[in-house]
Amino acid sequence: MVTHVEHKAVTDTQITPAQGLKTFAFETLPLQLGGQLGPVTVAYETWGSLNAAGDNAVLIAHALTGSSHAHDAERPDNTKVAWWNPLIGPGRFFDTSRYFVICSNIVGSCYGSTGPSSIDPDTGRPYGIRFPVITIHDMVEAQRRLIDHLGVRQLAMVAGGSIGGQQALEWAVAYPELVQKAIVVAATATLTAQAIAFSEVQRQAILADPRWQGGDYLPGQGPDAGLAIARMLAMITYQSEEGMELRFARETARQSDIVAPSGHTDFGKRFDVEGYLYYQGQSLVKRFDANSYLYISRAMDLYDVSEGYPSLEATLRRVRSKTLFIGIRSDFLFPAARVRWLAEQVRAAGRDASYVELNSPHGHDAFLKEWKQMIDALNTIKE
Amino acid sequence: MVTHVEHKAVTDTQITPAQGLKTFAFETLPLQLGGQLGPVTVAYETWGSLNAAGDNAVLIAHALTGSSHAHDAERPDNTKVAWWNPLIGPGRFFDTSRYFVICSNIVGSCYGSTGPSSIDPDTGRPYGIRFPVITIHDMVEAQRRLIDHLGVRQLAMVAGGSIGGQQALEWAVAYPELVQKAIVVAATATLTAQAIAFSEVQRQAILADPRWQGGDYLPGQGPDAGLAIARMLAMITYQSEEGMELRFARETARQSDIVAPSGHTDFGKRFDVEGYLYYQGQSLVKRFDANSYLYISRAMDLYDVSEGYPSLEATLRRVRSKTLFIGIRSDFLFPAARVRWLAEQVRAAGRDASYVELNSPHGHDAFLKEWKQMIDALNTIKE
Repeated sequence: MVTHVEHKAVTDTQITPAQGLKTFAFETLPLQLGGQLGPVTVAYETWGSLNAAGDNAVLIAHALTGSSHAHDAERPDNTKVAWWNPLIGPGRFFDTSRYFVICSNIVGSCYGSTGPSSIDPDTGRPYGIRFPVITIHDMVEAQRRLIDHLGVRQLAMVAGGSIGGQQALEWAVAYPELVQKAIVVAATATLTAQAIAFSEVQRQAILADPRWQGGDYLPGQGPDAGLAIARMLAMITYQSEEGMELRFARETARQSDIVAPSGHTDFGKRFDVEGYLYYQGQSLVKRFDANSYLYISRAMDLYDVSEGYPSLEATLRRVRSKTLFIGIRSDFLFPAARVRWLAEQVRAAGRDASYVELNSPHGHDAFLKEWKQMIDALNTIKE
Repeated sequence: MVTHVEHKAVTDTQITPAQGLKTFAFETLPLQLGGQLGPVTVAYETWGSLNAAGDNAVLIAHALTGSSHAHDAERPDNTKVAWWNPLIGPGRFFDTSRYFVICSNIVGSCYGSTGPSSIDPDTGRPYGIRFPVITIHDMVEAQRRLIDHLGVRQLAMVAGGSIGGQQALEWAVAYPELVQKAIVVAATATLTAQAIAFSEVQRQAILADPRWQGGDYLPGQGPDAGLAIARMLAMITYQSEEGMELRFARETARQSDIVAPSGHTDFGKRFDVEGYLYYQGQSLVKRFDANSYLYISRAMDLYDVSEGYPSLEATLRRVRSKTLFIGIRSDFLFPAARVRWLAEQVRAAGRDASYVELNSPHGHDAFLKEWKQMIDALNTIKE
């Protein structure tokens, strides 16, 4: 029997950490676009130990719907339970016998850090859309306070993919003196107009769902259909034409019991790719907050690494880290050509940058799937 | 002052024909997937005159949200009022002083032909989703009855882009003896899994809108938000990353008075591409029926030229026409490589096929924009 598990995508393995989640709270976070957020809780996990010099820390940054659970020390060989499991652990690239590896849930998310579903101290109710618009820089600022709190003096590495890659880049620019190596995977200086457009269609699907209720839905009564539709679209953008053709082609759905977001479907037949997308939508609805989705996806759109600096060149001249940019051949959300271009701009600014391209048909998601190629790429920055 | 007109896309010029619309009705149309539809009205327009032999007719097939108004004889130089205006008229490629040019609204649409918004004679109410699932073949069958009615004995040419290209292809396969030349623009033997996926996200946005009401909405009270969101997504797929970058990049919206489908928007700022997409959504809602959108987009997904034949090769061996396939370099909905591949398969089946690629950054929509290149491509099949 074909089970639902077959439809489980890699991006859906970014599950809530069951245990080992720690939190750190601080009073206020001044925000890039003005105003401030506070108090702020940052949920995080760590693996390995910080050395006396405080310079063996590695910060890992997660993607849109991810959590701090990049690694699962109890199930290190299970690729489903933690999103970068094969890259983290004793003897692995992010070697927990050598490094103090930290992964924190980003501000705006719903996996333990302060976000729109947190209680607004001014009203005693969840923020909803009274939550301020946050940026990649704000996420990095919260991380900086966390590493200070943990006694970290230097980050041996900062690494992440997608919005996590934007954070790694922002770290290299905002705190050049703190970062020895920055690894930016499937991320660019800015999003394309097309990527912003896809992102806005997703948000409109959520905002148009009457259950969104101006953002003031009760837990479990949110805009499930809208969020599921947003996720369906996002899942297309995380893959590629080539990859979807290999995986689904025009096959008929093997199961017809997965309910579509609207509850209506099947004009004529159900294609396998449709059943897969319904499943992905359903899965996200069970685990993610719609308002968090709005805020975090918007932070991706708004990100421009050169924001606040006189020029891109001046921005990139700030970098002191060794940088590694990893693009994915079939990624159309963060096109490889734009990742490569950014690496070239860093070099043109006189800084140390290398570029490696994953030859994968799996699109943007390849950084959560192509373990062998990822490890080979990462090893190029080892020494 | 920047006006809304700036945001007017080519695909939005497929306006309802104001005058000159004729209709032809017949009793029943047996359907490819079983059952029948009847009575059936086909709305159409013609330009030029049929010769005595009845063999100078040209059939033009429109795209998803198009109408029979491919040409406007009163305003032949206005590219906004009729969707293939620059290609049709006296002395133009589809030369109305030489050919009897016909364009009919497809079955399932809402521009005069029988579709889901038509009255179901069994109930006295609009069909809604009691309308049967129709296919590209059914659209062609309705067209065949129309040309019989008009006294056409031979089609000198059948031409169309996108779903219109699927119809041109279907004509060449279903009625090889009737078609002298088939011109298939930006269409393929089947849709990709990715294209089906985009299509299904659009339908779910419509179906999840509570105003859809199981398909039984009253005129003017339909799922406007859902249809607008569907259109926003479709407009992305009709363009390309490259084209959107050229046109919008990360510019801020020049106008902020266009209402987003949900009525909610602007987390932080509004990008120009967002305002553009809101405008496109709004425009379609004013002119198109949501149920028609569901049925026609589904017909695109379901289309497989080899359906009902032993193999693709056997299917293509049926062709007797000279065929011209036109692909668009930056089209990701109907990728150029798949258009070219289909032309090669026709040749491999021993039939006459040529392929021309438009070198355009404008994606799928290029067949409604790149007039010079379109004319050059069409001229290659002239004689």
